[in-house]
Amino acid sequence: MANKDRLDRMREAMQAADLDALVLRLPENVLLLSGFWPMIGAAVLVFPVDGSSVCIVPQCYESEASASLWDAQAIYYRYGVLGAQRPAQALRDILEGLNGAARWKKIGYEGDFEVIAPSWNSGEVLVPTTQSRELLSTAFPGRDLVDASALLKSERRIKTAYEIAKLRVASEISCIGLDVFERSVRVGVSGVELAAEVEREVMIKGTGYHGAMRVRAYAQVAVGADESAVGYRPNEISTARRLQDGDVALLELGLVADGYWADRTRVRVAGQPRDEQLRIFDTVLKAQQAATAALRPGICGDDVDEAARAVIRDAGYGSSFPHITGHGLGFCYHESSPILGPGSLEPLQEGMLTSVEPGVYLKPFGGFRLEDDVILTKDGSEILGPFRKTLG
Amino acid sequence: MANKDRLDRMREAMQAADLDALVLRLPENVLLLSGFWPMIGAAVLVFPVDGSSVCIVPQCYESEASASLWDAQAIYYRYGVLGAQRPAQALRDILEGLNGAARWKKIGYEGDFEVIAPSWNSGEVLVPTTQSRELLSTAFPGRDLVDASALLKSERRIKTAYEIAKLRVASEISCIGLDVFERSVRVGVSGVELAAEVEREVMIKGTGYHGAMRVRAYAQVAVGADESAVGYRPNEISTARRLQDGDVALLELGLVADGYWADRTRVRVAGQPRDEQLRIFDTVLKAQQAATAALRPGICGDDVDEAARAVIRDAGYGSSFPHITGHGLGFCYHESSPILGPGSLEPLQEGMLTSVEPGVYLKPFGGFRLEDDVILTKDGSEILGPFRKTLG
Repeated sequence: MANKDRLDRMREAMQAADLDALVLRLPENVLLLSGFWPMIGAAVLVFPVDGSSVCIVPQCYESEASASLWDAQAIYYRYGVLGAQRPAQALRDILEGLNGAARWKKIGYEGDFEVIAPSWNSGEVLVPTTQSRELLSTAFPGRDLVDASALLKSERRIKTAYEIAKLRVASEISCIGLDVFERSVRVGVSGVELAAEVEREVMIKGTGYHGAMRVRAYAQVAVGADESAVGYRPNEISTARRLQDGDVALLELGLVADGYWADRTRVRVAGQPRDEQLRIFDTVLKAQQAATAALRPGICGDDVDEAARAVIRDAGYGSSFPHITGHGLGFCYHESSPILGPGSLEPLQEGMLTSVEPGVYLKPFGGFRLEDDVILTKDGSEILGPFRKTLG
Repeated sequence: MANKDRLDRMREAMQAADLDALVLRLPENVLLLSGFWPMIGAAVLVFPVDGSSVCIVPQCYESEASASLWDAQAIYYRYGVLGAQRPAQALRDILEGLNGAARWKKIGYEGDFEVIAPSWNSGEVLVPTTQSRELLSTAFPGRDLVDASALLKSERRIKTAYEIAKLRVASEISCIGLDVFERSVRVGVSGVELAAEVEREVMIKGTGYHGAMRVRAYAQVAVGADESAVGYRPNEISTARRLQDGDVALLELGLVADGYWADRTRVRVAGQPRDEQLRIFDTVLKAQQAATAALRPGICGDDVDEAARAVIRDAGYGSSFPHITGHGLGFCYHESSPILGPGSLEPLQEGMLTSVEPGVYLKPFGGFRLEDDVILTKDGSEILGPFRKTLG
């Protein structure tokens, strides 16, 4: 089984927490422990600390599930067709009948995932709320239902070799988007056009890349200083505004390939960059290089952040870098650990994946950010899917 | 205020339910009652039964919020930047300081939205879970916190004139996608290529259409009988498989324009359709026309479904139409009411929006479905964004 490390580690963590089983419904966590990335949130993974796990899947996804499940037994139920039970009823009947479940005392669920990854079918998101809680209460009466969110998030911080290989594929696919972005930036094109073109190329050329089956990019392109240097915000807002000579175009690119995420940023200038723009870009590039060079097991996020921040401060742009240097990611676009930022004193560990993304946002020049995804290796770090960095 | 009907009706429903205020965080519900479609889930709308509402918004979205809020007072908080309070702390401080809140006894929250709409920034979804619940408990100690999900879902069934105008824009934009799909289907093209092209054209040409600012399509294209006639499933899975002569291409298209959704389906044959394919298509078309003709206030979903089902049954394809004829939509891709299906006995009402989407899935011919969004008018119904229906 390809990702045995993950299952072994999770079972150790469950033993330490005295958990008999996990019942998971978020696609990102079903993927984590089964290998199957559900299309919608209608699949449920039951992952016991002892014995084999069970994945309950709508019958219409039988071919996809059977092709990707590592070792979980699949149970299919009729979904969305006339004459089928209501999904909650079908799931309850299956959960009640599970082998060994009668002995479980403490069962973990996903009570506190406030930031979640969509499935590939991202126009609609199924999340576990009160209904799902009640389903567990009725299927497992009298048991201790506990929120296992913190345990799951903690375990997800350290990626296994199997997962790193998948994340590398996602990052390499993101280079398709970075490339078409750079080739497309020119005077007269709009942020919406650039974003749409990036998403199209990634879907067409990314599907099939190293076997990736379901690929989707979420591109956001801010153009000009007014859009790209709004202080800082968590996402860029693409508009129909067209690039003028000397305007920056800032691409924020989230991307998922079979459930594994990449998060990249590049910036270009349409036409001839001004001297100050070149100087800011060079500063951001050097800051990113300094942070990446500092990344290794044992260092803390505060120190990595400071490595980048010092470069920007020394160049005189300190007050224009208002955000942290990086964040975890992998099973979703942003994970809450590690954080490369002031006050992050936890030592980083091998197998952590973090973005490295310093930025300077300064009118009238624009917003400049470079972002790569970097994995911590045994004695250093490695950029997944390296890609060139130039301004124009 | 453009959508006063909505606010008046919601306040009436809150009075009947003895609710003093709603505290909302899902983008679809913030939009419903404020006019502002949050970029991420970090905005909170406080909507009291008496007095003016308050929308708490990350400062970085000030220009977007101030441009779209109808009448809510905006309170901005620093978000995602160094030195800012943690969002939960900032929100708690603001909620505790709200005018009039001391008198509220019963406060409604979104406890049971299992199927939610992403924001335009759909690579990441913020949902209210335990953390949000605890935030309310600490900000409003000792109050009666009640799940207002059912109330919200019930009120959302009937669209106001303002909302119908917005939904019409979304459906008209979806025609851009249907058109490029039909023009692109040919031997040799893949499902992934068709989906990517539809999404690109919708984003580029839809942005700015009748003032729409944030537009995104979610296109899924199944090709050939093996992919398109998997019984039935809630979504199609686009792959790199290329169309061969006589293959169907089935487009399932979800689309959002500024928070208002459309849901369309069209089917084409690459090359020359076979006689049986033409006969199936004609049957599905007549079934859709029969259901649409039956739609009017007072009829129940069961009768509308039967109008479509009878046509398909009479043509000999009854066992190949395994799903309902339609579902509500509007503030998300699929709403749970109304349902046009067997056993739906609730009388339909003016202002309800429903998909009408009969289908026949039959190997070796393929999956055939036609879907439009239809609004119930005073004495009949109207297709939003009408678009041609031909097979090839």
